[in-house]
Amino acid sequence: MNNSKFTLETVRNIYAACSQSGVDIIELGYRNSKEHFSPGKYGAWRFCEEDMLRKATEGVTKTAKIAIMQDAHKATGEDVIPKSESVVDMVRVATYVKDVDKAIALANNATKKGYEATINIMAISHVLERDLDEALQQIESETSITACYIVDSFGSLYSEDIDYLVHKFQRYLRTKEIGIHCHNQMQLGFANTIEGIIKNVNYLDGTLYGLGRAAGNCPLELLMGFLKNPKFNIRPILDVIETTILPLRAEMEWGYNIPYMVSGMLNLHPQEAMSFVDDKRAGTGKDTFVKFYERMRAEDEA
Amino acid sequence: MNNSKFTLETVRNIYAACSQSGVDIIELGYRNSKEHFSPGKYGAWRFCEEDMLRKATEGVTKTAKIAIMQDAHKATGEDVIPKSESVVDMVRVATYVKDVDKAIALANNATKKGYEATINIMAISHVLERDLDEALQQIESETSITACYIVDSFGSLYSEDIDYLVHKFQRYLRTKEIGIHCHNQMQLGFANTIEGIIKNVNYLDGTLYGLGRAAGNCPLELLMGFLKNPKFNIRPILDVIETTILPLRAEMEWGYNIPYMVSGMLNLHPQEAMSFVDDKRAGTGKDTFVKFYERMRAEDEA
Repeated sequence: MNNSKFTLETVRNIYAACSQSGVDIIELGYRNSKEHFSPGKYGAWRFCEEDMLRKATEGVTKTAKIAIMQDAHKATGEDVIPKSESVVDMVRVATYVKDVDKAIALANNATKKGYEATINIMAISHVLERDLDEALQQIESETSITACYIVDSFGSLYSEDIDYLVHKFQRYLRTKEIGIHCHNQMQLGFANTIEGIIKNVNYLDGTLYGLGRAAGNCPLELLMGFLKNPKFNIRPILDVIETTILPLRAEMEWGYNIPYMVSGMLNLHPQEAMSFVDDKRAGTGKDTFVKFYERMRAEDEA
Repeated sequence: MNNSKFTLETVRNIYAACSQSGVDIIELGYRNSKEHFSPGKYGAWRFCEEDMLRKATEGVTKTAKIAIMQDAHKATGEDVIPKSESVVDMVRVATYVKDVDKAIALANNATKKGYEATINIMAISHVLERDLDEALQQIESETSITACYIVDSFGSLYSEDIDYLVHKFQRYLRTKEIGIHCHNQMQLGFANTIEGIIKNVNYLDGTLYGLGRAAGNCPLELLMGFLKNPKFNIRPILDVIETTILPLRAEMEWGYNIPYMVSGMLNLHPQEAMSFVDDKRAGTGKDTFVKFYERMRAEDEA
């Protein structure tokens, strides 16, 4: 939503709150390549350089593992230094099914250098099942990742889809944990994460107050309320939402609205809906909801 | 959220949109007693007098049945005129379990006068199961209502609770349909309604853009996107949300936020959370989220 331009103070506050509340792992941003992302346009958390991560975490009692994300098609293994020299614990590799070979290479690069790794399969609602099956087979046999994630990038899955996909992942990934990362276009981010829990998914992604692209993600505070594990303390999460996350809404809006709902319902990338919302906010948008819906249907059916 | 003070134009627009989109039944408001609600403080839709209902619906091609709601403990049977003289098709009786005898009397009054009737059991997460079982037995044997509703007034139920309650309702209510009415304190209004559908609940409540007390209700537009029945047309719904519902947000806020989430998570009435939100909006609120959470826990455990 903001091209990874969070202030250092924001990231420090969030890291401290997550650590204090018992969150197991916190991803602080991407470690992507400067060849793909201009440092002029993107903030520090698109690159998560080691010194920034240290500045964001030093002095905080470290209980939450630190993760960074690499995009399979926009990152390089060379940017990952040996674990012994880093505060990072886990490298999460986000990939489309078609890039699974790149993802496997990046994941194996990370595990070889001493990190835990995950592979997160994005846009899973746009995939040919034959390709997904093959990718899962490869991931099972060619990596030693900790977990493989179902990523509902477009927020278009219903609980029955989660159920189906989890069973498929479990069938192929006999030696890995399964993870789930949901978006909230249809207000199902939290519910679909619970569906995953019921089916034995153990790696659960949430964000503070649901902060994330378009309608956002499964809210961490709801997840923490649901999980009865006494190790969690929701107070630091409620506090950091009030002091650090809510002020961000002045700059950017996330959360449920009609254009995002339409794109989720039609299983589309939220990009067009985000433009619609931006244009309305800027006062330049002329489309109505119905025209937007018709246009999205037409694109979907073209 | 506004003491039933909608303009006639708003109600007309909504009735027309619901009719055009294929909604089966639309509830236009309460028919409660003026002994319990002062007409000075409450708007016309707290009483739904016959002439108001006619003004709101005449000239619109009538495809959606018209429902009104009566509160078991705040309404009288005399306020319901014979069906032959009314545009109303259905009387929905909202009740706490303890008032089930009053609810049965009102429902039977309505069916005797020619209407379909439902009984909607509110605050179902605060009920002793023994009392609920007895109430359901009575409803089954002493009424000829169309449907009996599970009402998650506090938005505190998870899908497994819905599952459990639906099975219980089905066990007792062998000759009635089951209905579901969800609130969105934990962003589960839509997901819990889907859970009901999966378990053969056939009477589904939704509101436009989720408009409703506190975090609001299951959004009708999401429900319509989920149901594949070709009789539904979502366009009039999207249109009326844009032209009629969104402007209402200038006067009142509904939807997910932290105080509502806390009350849902703790299975509490949202009244305190609504006060918190109102005070913040007025600039007079001094509580933090954490203090609010502590206070709600203390009340819950007192």
